[in-house]
Amino acid sequence: MRRIALALVHYPVLDRQGATVTTAITNLDVHDIARSALTYGLCKFYLIHPIAAQRQLVERIKAHWIDGSGGRRIPDRVGPMRLVQVVPRLEDAVLRMSDETAPLLWTTSAGGATQEQCLSHYRAARLLQEPGPPVLLAFGTGWGLSQPIHQRATNRLLPIRSVHAENYNHLSVRAAVAILLDRLLGDRESSAPE
Amino acid sequence: MRRIALALVHYPVLDRQGATVTTAITNLDVHDIARSALTYGLCKFYLIHPIAAQRQLVERIKAHWIDGSGGRRIPDRVGPMRLVQVVPRLEDAVLRMSDETAPLLWTTSAGGATQEQCLSHYRAARLLQEPGPPVLLAFGTGWGLSQPIHQRATNRLLPIRSVHAENYNHLSVRAAVAILLDRLLGDRESSAPE
Repeated sequence: MRRIALALVHYPVLDRQGATVTTAITNLDVHDIARSALTYGLCKFYLIHPIAAQRQLVERIKAHWIDGSGGRRIPDRVGPMRLVQVVPRLEDAVLRMSDETAPLLWTTSAGGATQEQCLSHYRAARLLQEPGPPVLLAFGTGWGLSQPIHQRATNRLLPIRSVHAENYNHLSVRAAVAILLDRLLGDRESSAPE
Repeated sequence: MRRIALALVHYPVLDRQGATVTTAITNLDVHDIARSALTYGLCKFYLIHPIAAQRQLVERIKAHWIDGSGGRRIPDRVGPMRLVQVVPRLEDAVLRMSDETAPLLWTTSAGGATQEQCLSHYRAARLLQEPGPPVLLAFGTGWGLSQPIHQRATNRLLPIRSVHAENYNHLSVRAAVAILLDRLLGDRESSAPE
């Protein structure tokens, strides 16, 4: 299978008014998304943050859970935390993932794109089964990735649509990551007819 | 469609050693799971906690996001927070959900059950489309629901299995809820062939 990694972007992302901002690292994003990343076989989980003090915070969290008392107390956290890498810019994650070829960049968002522009989750899951270059899945914090990131992407995935609550598209990024990884890489057997 | 609700149980749940314990309310569980519950059309999200001070904490969180400054700043949180109900025992959620008939109790766990004992996610999704009594989906915090809760259940759902990381079954409860709601109630169109 291809190498697949996830990037959680803290800049450039949108705020509620659509302005481009930098968001703060959330401790539970690091844990939850690292655990989901290991469950679905990702090779890395990149946290993207332009501010050095915020990157150091992630390094301290990692150290606590890999070599420190956190890891001794809950050894199950060592594996997920080993996937975490923190870099200043999305480009750094792209560079680190490159081998002979650069990874494809697939972006995600909660809305704002038409069906025609986007890759369906079914089609994306099929593509990931085929041989090809690595894929970097980028998720935005705040109110989502800024437009220039989408424009740089090879593909943009369809939003996770609520069929129950029309116009409600406010999943947490932790939930959106989990759902999308399951749709793209999940165990087909337990959701398919016996 | 049937009325479907979710219960997040803080007692009786297991700790890492398999002892029965009470866990603390996690603020982000309230937010993330309420947002997922609204996305997937649930009628209620019950937080189960036997300690009055912990229930009051949830009431304060709700008030802040429904009538207080939180809701004025981020109006998108009002809808999810309105689904939240906090009760001392799982039985209270069952009673509150009952109309002519009591709800079916479906439990979830990360492991410890054989394939034969469990309802597959595909089968569960089909059942939810059929007319029938309401369904209460119970999730455990900590290391999962204690055995007596499973024994009281009408059905136990299959664990979310990692096909990539054998023996790793440590999703956060926030991620597990999101994935399971998507498998049971998600938009079939975006994950099905066009």
